[in-house]
Amino acid sequence: MESTPATATLLVSCADQSGLVAAMAGFISESNGNIVDLEQHVDNSEEAFFMRIEWELDGFSIARDQIETSLEPLLTRFDMQWSLHFSDVRPQVALFVTRDNHCLYDILSRHQSGDLQMDVPVIISNHRTLEPVAQQFGINFHHIPVTADTKPEQEHIQIALLRENNIDTIVLARYMQILSDDFVRNFPNQIINIHHSFLPAFPGARPYHSAHKRGVKIIGATSHYVTSELDEGPIITQDIIRVTHRDTVSDFIRKGKDLEKIVLTRALWRHLQRRILVYKNCTVVFA
Amino acid sequence: MESTPATATLLVSCADQSGLVAAMAGFISESNGNIVDLEQHVDNSEEAFFMRIEWELDGFSIARDQIETSLEPLLTRFDMQWSLHFSDVRPQVALFVTRDNHCLYDILSRHQSGDLQMDVPVIISNHRTLEPVAQQFGINFHHIPVTADTKPEQEHIQIALLRENNIDTIVLARYMQILSDDFVRNFPNQIINIHHSFLPAFPGARPYHSAHKRGVKIIGATSHYVTSELDEGPIITQDIIRVTHRDTVSDFIRKGKDLEKIVLTRALWRHLQRRILVYKNCTVVFA
Amino acid sequence: MESTPATATLLVSCADQSGLVAAMAGFISESNGNIVDLEQHVDNSEEAFFMRIEWELDGFSIARDQIETSLEPLLTRFDMQWSLHFSDVRPQVALFVTRDNHCLYDILSRHQSGDLQMDVPVIISNHRTLEPVAQQFGINFHHIPVTADTKPEQEHIQIALLRENNIDTIVLARYMQILSDDFVRNFPNQIINIHHSFLPAFPGARPYHSAHKRGVKIIGATSHYVTSELDEGPIITQDIIRVTHRDTVSDFIRKGKDLEKIVLTRALWRHLQRRILVYKNCTVVFA
Amino acid sequence: MESTPATATLLVSCADQSGLVAAMAGFISESNGNIVDLEQHVDNSEEAFFMRIEWELDGFSIARDQIETSLEPLLTRFDMQWSLHFSDVRPQVALFVTRDNHCLYDILSRHQSGDLQMDVPVIISNHRTLEPVAQQFGINFHHIPVTADTKPEQEHIQIALLRENNIDTIVLARYMQILSDDFVRNFPNQIINIHHSFLPAFPGARPYHSAHKRGVKIIGATSHYVTSELDEGPIITQDIIRVTHRDTVSDFIRKGKDLEKIVLTRALWRHLQRRILVYKNCTVVFA
Repeated sequence: MESTPATATLLVSCADQSGLVAAMAGFISESNGNIVDLEQHVDNSEEAFFMRIEWELDGFSIARDQIETSLEPLLTRFDMQWSLHFSDVRPQVALFVTRDNHCLYDILSRHQSGDLQMDVPVIISNHRTLEPVAQQFGINFHHIPVTADTKPEQEHIQIALLRENNIDTIVLARYMQILSDDFVRNFPNQIINIHHSFLPAFPGARPYHSAHKRGVKIIGATSHYVTSELDEGPIITQDIIRVTHRDTVSDFIRKGKDLEKIVLTRALWRHLQRRILVYKNCTVVFA
Repeated sequence: MESTPATATLLVSCADQSGLVAAMAGFISESNGNIVDLEQHVDNSEEAFFMRIEWELDGFSIARDQIETSLEPLLTRFDMQWSLHFSDVRPQVALFVTRDNHCLYDILSRHQSGDLQMDVPVIISNHRTLEPVAQQFGINFHHIPVTADTKPEQEHIQIALLRENNIDTIVLARYMQILSDDFVRNFPNQIINIHHSFLPAFPGARPYHSAHKRGVKIIGATSHYVTSELDEGPIITQDIIRVTHRDTVSDFIRKGKDLEKIVLTRALWRHLQRRILVYKNCTVVFA
Repeated sequence: MESTPATATLLVSCADQSGLVAAMAGFISESNGNIVDLEQHVDNSEEAFFMRIEWELDGFSIARDQIETSLEPLLTRFDMQWSLHFSDVRPQVALFVTRDNHCLYDILSRHQSGDLQMDVPVIISNHRTLEPVAQQFGINFHHIPVTADTKPEQEHIQIALLRENNIDTIVLARYMQILSDDFVRNFPNQIINIHHSFLPAFPGARPYHSAHKRGVKIIGATSHYVTSELDEGPIITQDIIRVTHRDTVSDFIRKGKDLEKIVLTRALWRHLQRRILVYKNCTVVFA
Repeated sequence: MESTPATATLLVSCADQSGLVAAMAGFISESNGNIVDLEQHVDNSEEAFFMRIEWELDGFSIARDQIETSLEPLLTRFDMQWSLHFSDVRPQVALFVTRDNHCLYDILSRHQSGDLQMDVPVIISNHRTLEPVAQQFGINFHHIPVTADTKPEQEHIQIALLRENNIDTIVLARYMQILSDDFVRNFPNQIINIHHSFLPAFPGARPYHSAHKRGVKIIGATSHYVTSELDEGPIITQDIIRVTHRDTVSDFIRKGKDLEKIVLTRALWRHLQRRILVYKNCTVVFA
């Protein structure tokens, strides 16, 4: 993995216009960049354009720290929103957990085996339950209990800790606290949550109980970016599993764990690959 | 198919008690009945018992028209709700349609090839669009247009037609009218609808439009028995298909047709096999 | 549907080289073409490049019949294999069937409701069973019985009929005859078959019987382009459904019908959209 | 979990005969046993009968150690194969691993959170790679390297270790050695393997490489009991995930890990619940 040649990835979105692909591909081509992946999407109803373009840095005639400046005329001309990433700059990820271990183990074992290109400087929890798991993997664990009264000050401590560790991505790996608007505003499209239902069905608390009561034949899990509206953020990925009348709420919970961990880790993988663009509370998830 | 030996199927539900299976299996066994299938389910949280028991009529020492009387002491002793069916008495099914042809073709072609053991004496529609399809398959088509004003009287005509044809099962194969409470009360747990969403997400009108706006990554379809609460009846079966940001509402509709027809026909098949029990707005669907 | 503006679609494949996307996008852009979709794929292990590019003909400064000539320098420079299609030129599709009706009904009802942009000038069958279905939809039906002895001459009749009708796509909708190498060579990557197993498991005859004997827990269906190797052609799409120990071979067959029709029609839809490229007996299926 | 009342579970199979269910249910009922679950299956083509019956030990008038003796007349009369289990006697499970950590973590974290009712006295591996994981969870790790030459003697050491620990279930959690016939004969229907393909497709080594070369659109994983025929044992459960032309062999491997761990743990869960009967190289997996 480490020996893969470094690449730059540019994510852009703007109003749809003629000549966008040609202009962007031309820019890279003219500077001897070898495009390894280009995916674009036009949303006709919104007249919006989205593109992810990835090219090899080796042989590219523009120095890394000059790319932004060189791109500027193009970005301005098309009035683009954009972000630029380098494959050898590893995302810094914080994991928030409470008591359930399945999502945490899934992410950490995937990380251990090299499937997730990131660093995990810190695990934050409102309980001590999973501290031994953090220790197993040699990761700093911070116990920051939260009550209704202490939430504002505890979130300040959390945010300070995240800033200190240069965290750019927060994963709520079954973290059972609702983040304040203020917290969320600090990390727009940087907080990934897993909700244990097929959203928008069963938002909020105890979705398996509600699903069981309704007598559904399929349960789901949804990963999404966190916004100030609870369980209303842009959906990244979803998956489902079948249930029957024989399954109790406990069975829903047991079966659901498989979904939750897999759906969350998949979303994180795509996020780390810089494959997601957010637009009007929806996501463009490039393949 | 026709040469399969005739069987009797008894569906029962009651409060959970000791000795239920032994008593029911004993009853059949003592009269030389060969049980070909027995499935039971205990809902511990509701302390409720459900059973489907199917046995061969050939060799059974009780005459068909005496089975109810013979069972009565047992049914009374356990205070059971029950229904008794014979595999060689074909259900009489009415299909309600509007303009979309996919569910209608799916049911009729399945019927033509012998996969659905039923008769279809009548197709009812509020439009003439699908009349040629009914003619293709040689089935009586009744055009009964419905407006807000005419609904009560038109439903009377529908009900009269259904009674005349001894209809015991009504399939709403993309019928775009809401049935009145009065109509529904006439056919409890006998009306099967297909809703083009993963209920309880997106009930009501235009679910694909709502799903697209919400940016879901999976769409679904749900078959359920119709009750007086719109899209709130007992769910029989559900299925899903993946969508991406590339899919427009039209793509949702196109992809969804596959789901709708398959989910509806599967539900109908189970219903015809007498494999469904309704309990507290949920279904027990025997395998 | 009919009012969608006409587009041109170019499918190309060649050895991977620098500047490919920029050159192709530049060509269209310089002639005032508005790109509505561009998807490319690089197979690194094969060092191969694939692209599908679709642009609006309205406003494009090169006349339809001049596009090939204008493209030629580019196609030559990169040594590309290519094909050019226009969205308003409808594919001419022949359906081959035997006795099973489910795939035929699925394709014809989808066609009737406008989901498949094609013409179906002819249905060919080695039995008369489905002639009434062809009549229902007003399509010419040709009964061409085939035995081991008569196959060569009957295939000549078939090929003549296909040529006469300008057929460019053949769909084997559960056609239970093996086409000769000679026949297949006449229609490279133009014949779509549905095989009722999850290939490469259970190729050849009676796959459901073999799957049942093996005790699998999932059955599948596979659509693929036909090559001279039976059931070995490039796979287009696959899908699966769960089975249990309760399912008999008849249940496999009944459940499998849903898969077969859906998987075949999906493959046909993608083919008609010119979204498939074949490479080393595999397919690139653009989204 | 621990406070659930203890139950007895009887698994039986025999030739299909009249009166089987009545006799077995009657036996339990007459001794005041409360049946909490009964599932039966008749395989008509094989004329074989299978049943799982579970009843509460509390209130049952026959002492645990007398149940076998009391059942004997019935078992003899119907010529049954049978096994009897008690829910409060925990299965003793050995895990065999090599280098991949995902199945091991999945099982151990599920075990840690109480989802798998078993003890794991020992982990055996032919490499030291996963020793730290065993230590994390406080489980004895035995490094038993195996070469072609040393296999017979090393297997003797393994078997001795398993006997010593009263192991009744062996899980090959991505153990990359083939067990000898002799080893397998010691543990009939007690060794669960995960194979990383949709069997019977791609048995043997490097299935993801073969699947990629074939251009499949879906990959799978299969859990099965190990027999002397490699990858030919009775299938317990299978699952699949979609792939596209964009996925490399590495992507297949990464995606496949999710399948492998989930399919293996599901199979183990059913095995521990005594829900599986093996018959003619197939499984009956009760719901």
